[in-house]
Amino acid sequence: MSQISTKPPSGMRDFLAPDVARRRHVIGVIARVYESFGFVPLETPTIENLSTLLGKYGPEGDQLLYRLLHRRERLARALEGKPDGGKTTELDLSDEGLRYDLTVPLARVVANYGELPAFYKRYQIQPVWRADRPAKGRFREFFQCDVDICGTKSLVADAEVCGAVATVLRELGFGNDANGFQIHVNHRELLRAMVSEAGIDLAMEGQALIALDKLDKIGADGVKTELVEKGIAAEAAAKLLDVLAAARAPGFLAARAADAASSVDVAKPGAKAAAELIELLAIVAGGPAGPHLVFDPTLARGLSYYTGPIFEITCAGLAGSMGGGGRYDGLIGMFTKRQIPAVGFSLGLERVLLVMEERGMFPPLGLGPQVLLCRFPEIGAAQAVAVATQLRAAGLRVELFADTPSLGKQLQYAATIGAPFAAILGSNELAAQSLTLKKLTTGEQKTLPIADVAAFVRAG
Amino acid sequence: MSQISTKPPSGMRDFLAPDVARRRHVIGVIARVYESFGFVPLETPTIENLSTLLGKYGPEGDQLLYRLLHRRERLARALEGKPDGGKTTELDLSDEGLRYDLTVPLARVVANYGELPAFYKRYQIQPVWRADRPAKGRFREFFQCDVDICGTKSLVADAEVCGAVATVLRELGFGNDANGFQIHVNHRELLRAMVSEAGIDLAMEGQALIALDKLDKIGADGVKTELVEKGIAAEAAAKLLDVLAAARAPGFLAARAADAASSVDVAKPGAKAAAELIELLAIVAGGPAGPHLVFDPTLARGLSYYTGPIFEITCAGLAGSMGGGGRYDGLIGMFTKRQIPAVGFSLGLERVLLVMEERGMFPPLGLGPQVLLCRFPEIGAAQAVAVATQLRAAGLRVELFADTPSLGKQLQYAATIGAPFAAILGSNELAAQSLTLKKLTTGEQKTLPIADVAAFVRAG
Repeated sequence: MSQISTKPPSGMRDFLAPDVARRRHVIGVIARVYESFGFVPLETPTIENLSTLLGKYGPEGDQLLYRLLHRRERLARALEGKPDGGKTTELDLSDEGLRYDLTVPLARVVANYGELPAFYKRYQIQPVWRADRPAKGRFREFFQCDVDICGTKSLVADAEVCGAVATVLRELGFGNDANGFQIHVNHRELLRAMVSEAGIDLAMEGQALIALDKLDKIGADGVKTELVEKGIAAEAAAKLLDVLAAARAPGFLAARAADAASSVDVAKPGAKAAAELIELLAIVAGGPAGPHLVFDPTLARGLSYYTGPIFEITCAGLAGSMGGGGRYDGLIGMFTKRQIPAVGFSLGLERVLLVMEERGMFPPLGLGPQVLLCRFPEIGAAQAVAVATQLRAAGLRVELFADTPSLGKQLQYAATIGAPFAAILGSNELAAQSLTLKKLTTGEQKTLPIADVAAFVRAG
Repeated sequence: MSQISTKPPSGMRDFLAPDVARRRHVIGVIARVYESFGFVPLETPTIENLSTLLGKYGPEGDQLLYRLLHRRERLARALEGKPDGGKTTELDLSDEGLRYDLTVPLARVVANYGELPAFYKRYQIQPVWRADRPAKGRFREFFQCDVDICGTKSLVADAEVCGAVATVLRELGFGNDANGFQIHVNHRELLRAMVSEAGIDLAMEGQALIALDKLDKIGADGVKTELVEKGIAAEAAAKLLDVLAAARAPGFLAARAADAASSVDVAKPGAKAAAELIELLAIVAGGPAGPHLVFDPTLARGLSYYTGPIFEITCAGLAGSMGGGGRYDGLIGMFTKRQIPAVGFSLGLERVLLVMEERGMFPPLGLGPQVLLCRFPEIGAAQAVAVATQLRAAGLRVELFADTPSLGKQLQYAATIGAPFAAILGSNELAAQSLTLKKLTTGEQKTLPIADVAAFVRAG
């Protein structure tokens, strides 16, 4: 047999202990902050029915779904071909796939469980899978950290999800003003008005937004080229970028919103959306997201299910975003007859970790054994196990060296695993119910009663 | 479009907040105890190459693997059929699958990362997937909680993994003696000797052990029937069960081990294994697993990779086991030229939870908002956000009611979500930077400065 590859599959990663410690640190802060905002946890299965997943993310998303192959009889039947002689297709081979995001599973859950509160505030920190081309910082398995509020159109909900993610980033050390990170905000209805003003048919809106979403990656000329490739006239494409640029002018939102006040019938398209953004900015001002929120008329977001305000987080030196979200008042209604409005925000764990690693933002994370328990060959294994049990009961992390090579070899091993202390058990120590503690960094040694070891080790 | 099913797929589950809280409680204890034994965490990807997974679990395991369908061009090529006109098969459609256990990924990791310690002690708590028939307590996605020690044949390692899982169960409240739970122990080499003594060809050993593994489910007659179905003579099948029953006699291990002492050349088969079990029982006696370990000559374990001692945990009232493990000195060598011995133990999270739920073993688990912040309509949302921010900064879990229906409706909602307190913000309170706290269970009300609210809520 040829040697099996021992690497994880393309786009997948193994996390050794220091990686896990950093990931847990960040996940711990996120969960604690989300809970402080009154969100409760939800976990959904890795595998969902394809009927749940398909048609929610737009055509690009559907293509990136991982699909599970049918098994045994069902697979055999599918491979037989169809009674009419038709060829086997992808749809015949699979009806389940891997979770692509956490929002669609949430929508399914809200539709399924009648016992959930009327205003269901859930958070969810789980991996998702996308069969995308791997690149720096882009993986096929990655964690999303979502907060969502279902059941209300109140902009207080939009403000709360912004406040929750802003508090997370502030607590992680990203800074307390817009220099630290920005939350870009826009509104799908305002974008729709702009698309219309540019003379683009609204049937092309989704395509236009997918192109516009790439603005920070491919620039204005790149977006224009892609719009034209999608069949939009060059003039309209140029106009769209012009009206969006003009919307950056100070006072744009106020001027547009003023139109809404006069009369709904004659209001300029997007006036209500502009008024909502002004209100949202005002509500957010009272909380932690206040200093970070900036109106960005070019923000589009790629997913097709958004209907109102949309968000995206950027920070200096990071290409792409650390997270995004928005209002999706129609999605849950795709699973149930009730229309349930909702808004959410998703932090991308890998992006947050990337910036934190580059900037050295992690505190010291206690990890690995504090004590390696070494013994001389004359000490029986059962006696060493008993001593290790005492130390562990006192709250220490203790590795018991399994064999009894020379003490020098055991101490060397303590150094290679980074244990701060070695505890040596010989006949004298055993008789006195004591241990000789050796501090690995200095070589200092001290013999003390087993009962006193935990305090000694904790004191460093 | 017909209504989409909102249930999770067969064998999969959604975990709402109380479920997540219970799972986290148990996982937290497991992680802390495993770390106290000096194990460090590892996480591996959900998706593995099929070349990694296939051929490690035995034929039954291979059949239960979830396989991922190829995409786009690769799928199209596969569905075209082969150049020689051969039919498309399962192997043409997939080369990746979902993790089936945590042991094979560990073996791959140990083979891949040269920087790991010589005695790599890792723990891993992650879900695995098996396309098995769902049943009570059997799911297609479930969590395993593994500890393994790689790099030593010392029985101290076997004793340590037993000690770790025993400590977990003791800390969770399963009791401190064999009435609480038992760790059954046997040895694959001893089983092999028994199979041989029964006159069964060793080529049939794997099949015999798979049948024997079902003894507690289908009984002795069921095992005999299955052995015969697999092609083993009825007489040999009966003999196997007889010799295993005879091995339950007190003194069996000592008598068998005595054979090893005389001469290796003439030692009765299994003598060395019996001696190892005696040594293991002696080592374990010094630690937390001591009162729980019992020799069980009929314990077989279904997986094909075990080579030495094997373990399984049972407790009264639970059909099946709460976990199992054993020594597998050959598995890592399937991934690398170095032979690296290893031993591990896996706790099944779902089984542990099942017993704990049936017995009401959970402590109270703090969950959900402690305070619902209500406001009168004259209070602006931005002001409410500011007050919520203060309470959260003081460490409280606070839900801000998004709208401003009547106070009665807001208070009613506080009760439905189980918040112990409602905090009411009106003009008087805002002017005085205070809040009126209402205890939902008693209806008591008290107005106090915002700065004092956290202490008041924590006092209950």
